[in-house]
Amino acid sequence: MDSGKDTFNVTITGGAGQIAYSLIPLVCSGQTFGDKIRINLRLLDIEPMMKVLGGVAMEVQDCAFPLVNSVEHGFDPKEMLKDADVAIFVGGFPRKKGMERKDLIDKNVSIFKEQGKALNEVASSDCKILVVANPANTNCLVLSKNAPNIPAENFSALTRLDHDRALNQVALKTGNTVNDVKDIVIWGNHSSTQYPDVRFVKIKGEKFDSKPDEEFYMGEFISTVQKRGAAIIDARNLSSSMSAANAANNHMKDWYFGSEHIVSMALITDGSTYDMEKDLCFSFPVKCKGNFKHEIVTGLEINDFSQEKMKITMTELLEEKQLANIE
Amino acid sequence: MDSGKDTFNVTITGGAGQIAYSLIPLVCSGQTFGDKIRINLRLLDIEPMMKVLGGVAMEVQDCAFPLVNSVEHGFDPKEMLKDADVAIFVGGFPRKKGMERKDLIDKNVSIFKEQGKALNEVASSDCKILVVANPANTNCLVLSKNAPNIPAENFSALTRLDHDRALNQVALKTGNTVNDVKDIVIWGNHSSTQYPDVRFVKIKGEKFDSKPDEEFYMGEFISTVQKRGAAIIDARNLSSSMSAANAANNHMKDWYFGSEHIVSMALITDGSTYDMEKDLCFSFPVKCKGNFKHEIVTGLEINDFSQEKMKITMTELLEEKQLANIE
Repeated sequence: MDSGKDTFNVTITGGAGQIAYSLIPLVCSGQTFGDKIRINLRLLDIEPMMKVLGGVAMEVQDCAFPLVNSVEHGFDPKEMLKDADVAIFVGGFPRKKGMERKDLIDKNVSIFKEQGKALNEVASSDCKILVVANPANTNCLVLSKNAPNIPAENFSALTRLDHDRALNQVALKTGNTVNDVKDIVIWGNHSSTQYPDVRFVKIKGEKFDSKPDEEFYMGEFISTVQKRGAAIIDARNLSSSMSAANAANNHMKDWYFGSEHIVSMALITDGSTYDMEKDLCFSFPVKCKGNFKHEIVTGLEINDFSQEKMKITMTELLEEKQLANIE
Repeated sequence: MDSGKDTFNVTITGGAGQIAYSLIPLVCSGQTFGDKIRINLRLLDIEPMMKVLGGVAMEVQDCAFPLVNSVEHGFDPKEMLKDADVAIFVGGFPRKKGMERKDLIDKNVSIFKEQGKALNEVASSDCKILVVANPANTNCLVLSKNAPNIPAENFSALTRLDHDRALNQVALKTGNTVNDVKDIVIWGNHSSTQYPDVRFVKIKGEKFDSKPDEEFYMGEFISTVQKRGAAIIDARNLSSSMSAANAANNHMKDWYFGSEHIVSMALITDGSTYDMEKDLCFSFPVKCKGNFKHEIVTGLEINDFSQEKMKITMTELLEEKQLANIE
């Protein structure tokens, strides 16, 4: 993407769904890319959702967002991803009752293969990609594999929701506001194997000592973050949309504007960091440099406990990769 | 409200509903009151919704909003409105199939009487109030009548959604972006009798001449704006939440920061402007002066057509007032 651009073509898939409904106003109001960047919004969803999606597009118009140049909607990925500068993949095949993991992955692989090919063919060759739809990491890998014209470092999957949930849990435990807590890390898969790691946390700028509550931070804390999504569904009878959209916004905003502190992003591995296998989509500690540049924070100490946790989540990703038939 | 405050206690009623779900992130992220004002958020809903509301509160925490000091939720208006600096009334009794207008008003009068009394007793005496729940204008009047300790000019009902919808329709008709169109007016009730008025519109700073399309602007345009809510419901099978929340945000933001151009706000009449009866909640052209000061734009020419349209919507408000048994 040309850093001098004053307009972004932004595609959001799953445009008729709940997360998109929460995300669209953040993108269109300038929360995500600031008030200097105008937006051409393209909403993609499956054909049976076109009437609903048309209603969403009407509402976007009725919001009278000063930054929005145009709103289009459709079901053809090649139309909706045309010249995309930013593409946020919110739509996927949801897990249904009694569905095996293999079936879920199969369904999503076929969606993300098609969309990856479209991305490769019609999007800006420097398009920046965020995958929100689950299984997010593997969907992102499928997308990247099918869009070889776009650099692998442009692809990311969302673990920022886990990151922000983990910050909140530390804030609650220590009696701080969430704004005081920084530099948490989510390692691995956006799933129940993820490893939220407090070992590098700073609170009000000071190194946080988790030792006095080590049992909590190595046990209950990790499972609370891992299972937070299920806890929200239990309370709301609906999955998290507001907080997922907010996390997607934070992810893209920090990627674009830069982040002073560590954020968590799932990125395509090149095999060079933390003994990680090549060609997985794995969540790392990242610092964003602005204008969609980012660097994995390297050299963090990995102790035996962390090593074990990271291996569990990497193994799950390898299994998913195999189920998805990715070479 | 003390203009020197750096924290607002913000109460949102109907906190478990769809509009609140879209509104909360706008308030909590600083869209509404900027990034200098910290927020204590209080979410009110009825007792059967407490589990869902608890889930919403969990999601607010998971958003890790830097500006949010605290999130509370409950079903007692006296607890949730305590020391409120800003109260946004999104929750009401919705119209159900086969329900008469009288029944709808009765149900809402009893809700807003109770909440008005609580507001009077426990809120900041300079609390700023926005009513979104329908029938919004009459609900707002009921609230004001039951909270005599709070100045009548602190009460407002939402017609900004109609205003923004009308801007969009003019933009579509004239081939401009919505940002080019300013100074539209919504007169009267947030209902199908509202009168969207293009006679003072400026496009790109130039006086707009609606004469060549007079038939459109005196007919189809008005009914399109009046019926836009129904068109959204028809498409989405759900009423407008994103755009309603966005309008509530625009309303409060302009009220707080000021508006260069005309905005529409429904305000409690004092009988001094546009031959309007005293003690109605009627939408006027308004300029906001910042820090929640506002002035009705007076002296706009009212021709015969406008006079007639304004009378229709005023008559409806008088009827609603009578149905609500307001002295």
